[in-house]
Amino acid sequence: MPSPREASPDLQKAITDTAAAVTKTMEHLLPESDMAESRLFDAMRYSAMGGGKRLRPFLVIQSAKLFNVDPTRAKRVAAALEFVHCYSLIHDDLPAMDNADTRRGKPSAHRKYDEATAILAGDALQALAFEILADNQTHEDPRVRCQLIATLAKAAGGHGMCGGQMLDLIGETEEFDIGTISRLQRLKTGMLMAFACEAGAILGKTDEPHRKALRNYAHDLGLAFQVTDDILDVEADPSMTGKPANQDEAAGKATFVSTLGKDQARMRAEMLVAQACRHLHPFADRADTLKKFAHYVLERRA
Amino acid sequence: MPSPREASPDLQKAITDTAAAVTKTMEHLLPESDMAESRLFDAMRYSAMGGGKRLRPFLVIQSAKLFNVDPTRAKRVAAALEFVHCYSLIHDDLPAMDNADTRRGKPSAHRKYDEATAILAGDALQALAFEILADNQTHEDPRVRCQLIATLAKAAGGHGMCGGQMLDLIGETEEFDIGTISRLQRLKTGMLMAFACEAGAILGKTDEPHRKALRNYAHDLGLAFQVTDDILDVEADPSMTGKPANQDEAAGKATFVSTLGKDQARMRAEMLVAQACRHLHPFADRADTLKKFAHYVLERRA
Repeated sequence: MPSPREASPDLQKAITDTAAAVTKTMEHLLPESDMAESRLFDAMRYSAMGGGKRLRPFLVIQSAKLFNVDPTRAKRVAAALEFVHCYSLIHDDLPAMDNADTRRGKPSAHRKYDEATAILAGDALQALAFEILADNQTHEDPRVRCQLIATLAKAAGGHGMCGGQMLDLIGETEEFDIGTISRLQRLKTGMLMAFACEAGAILGKTDEPHRKALRNYAHDLGLAFQVTDDILDVEADPSMTGKPANQDEAAGKATFVSTLGKDQARMRAEMLVAQACRHLHPFADRADTLKKFAHYVLERRA
Repeated sequence: MPSPREASPDLQKAITDTAAAVTKTMEHLLPESDMAESRLFDAMRYSAMGGGKRLRPFLVIQSAKLFNVDPTRAKRVAAALEFVHCYSLIHDDLPAMDNADTRRGKPSAHRKYDEATAILAGDALQALAFEILADNQTHEDPRVRCQLIATLAKAAGGHGMCGGQMLDLIGETEEFDIGTISRLQRLKTGMLMAFACEAGAILGKTDEPHRKALRNYAHDLGLAFQVTDDILDVEADPSMTGKPANQDEAAGKATFVSTLGKDQARMRAEMLVAQACRHLHPFADRADTLKKFAHYVLERRA
């Protein structure tokens, strides 16, 4: 029997299979270039194709399954979202931001190439995401495509991920209370997670209550994800996480752990996961994988 | 009578009026923030609202006029495009790229704020552009919105502006021939110009021949624009251009002037403008403003 701290073999297999399938779609959507500017595409591919757990794509695929969405479409949306996630990692790693030399155990993009190339690779990945979503292969109904684009653009922009990243930087010199830390993480991580879960509902043209249920699940899951990230930062093995330990403390960042303490932080994460699962009530046992996934996020070691 | 080297008073007024109207729309689409992350919005507004000739918006508005498009819609598209242009200027000015301390006679975004804020402000402006285009206020037909988004994303991404910027950086250490310099500029500047002109045709749901005519006009205009930019870089008055002279030479960049010489470069620009105007033949005298604009680009002093 697997340890309760590990994903069940079924879930683990589903995550690995989805990662492989979505990576194949990403490969197809971002081929190599043989033009003089190929260095840009090399850097985009280096950052986007070089591993990563593809957790956001997993949420897209699973939420799309609830509404029997064509998997080819779901994979395109998953790829677009993952390109946005990868662009944000490239820019976050830059010397002016988190100044991270490694990412997933390899040199970060600006260390492998150079800062200018890394900045441009991030910029081009963001544009690529919207290009993919606007294409009619993503969904035959242009209304659906526009909804996907509007939702992702909001989640990624100033009122979403970029705003959260700004708060994160401000938090290096200002004291934040737990409410502001929660909001920071909701913007920085939660909004893209929410898009991942909502994407299936948008593709499935479902009603607002089902869409909202998935959004609420995602927001609690996103927070739980971040709390466990903070815990992993202080206790995890760098050989598993692929990044140095105690980075947050070194950067003077207020985290859930620094504010609540490790035990309270863990309790908070457990509470959030339970709450996330309750939001899935309308889907009954069809949402079992999403529920298992929430527990996996809580118990992951990397 | 005005000097042939200056825009006619009518054209000058049209440009100024359009700049004011589109800036008002941009102001509406990017309001101040009173949240903890307001610094991000301050930096976005600082870069987007602080002047600029708004030449790309002018092309959107003029091309839209050819098809009697509702000006409110055209202004939204013009604003979205200008936000993309502004994001690219912020990132181009970064120390890792052109390392420019000033922009439009004021401190560049990373000098006014800091590098991290400037990177994020650029990222968020790009997302905002797509959010605006996806909104049904931009056009009631979602098919039109998707076409706008796909065309802008291509023009801004790896096969457009970002690719051109990558070539520009490579050109600092590699020798480019005139063909590669032309391609560099076509990607770096021409693709956004082409979007500006095509946007009116997309909004007006016109046929491919008219769309193509505008695209061809834009590509020749874009190249002419870049050639005159190179000429201005060596001969213009910094108090008019708002940036130091001879920046390209100092950066070791191959330009039309360094490759062709100033006289040949000027002849090439004149040839391109004549060619640009010929593409507008299908619109007869309804395209007179666009023709005048092409001559203005050639003769501008800043």
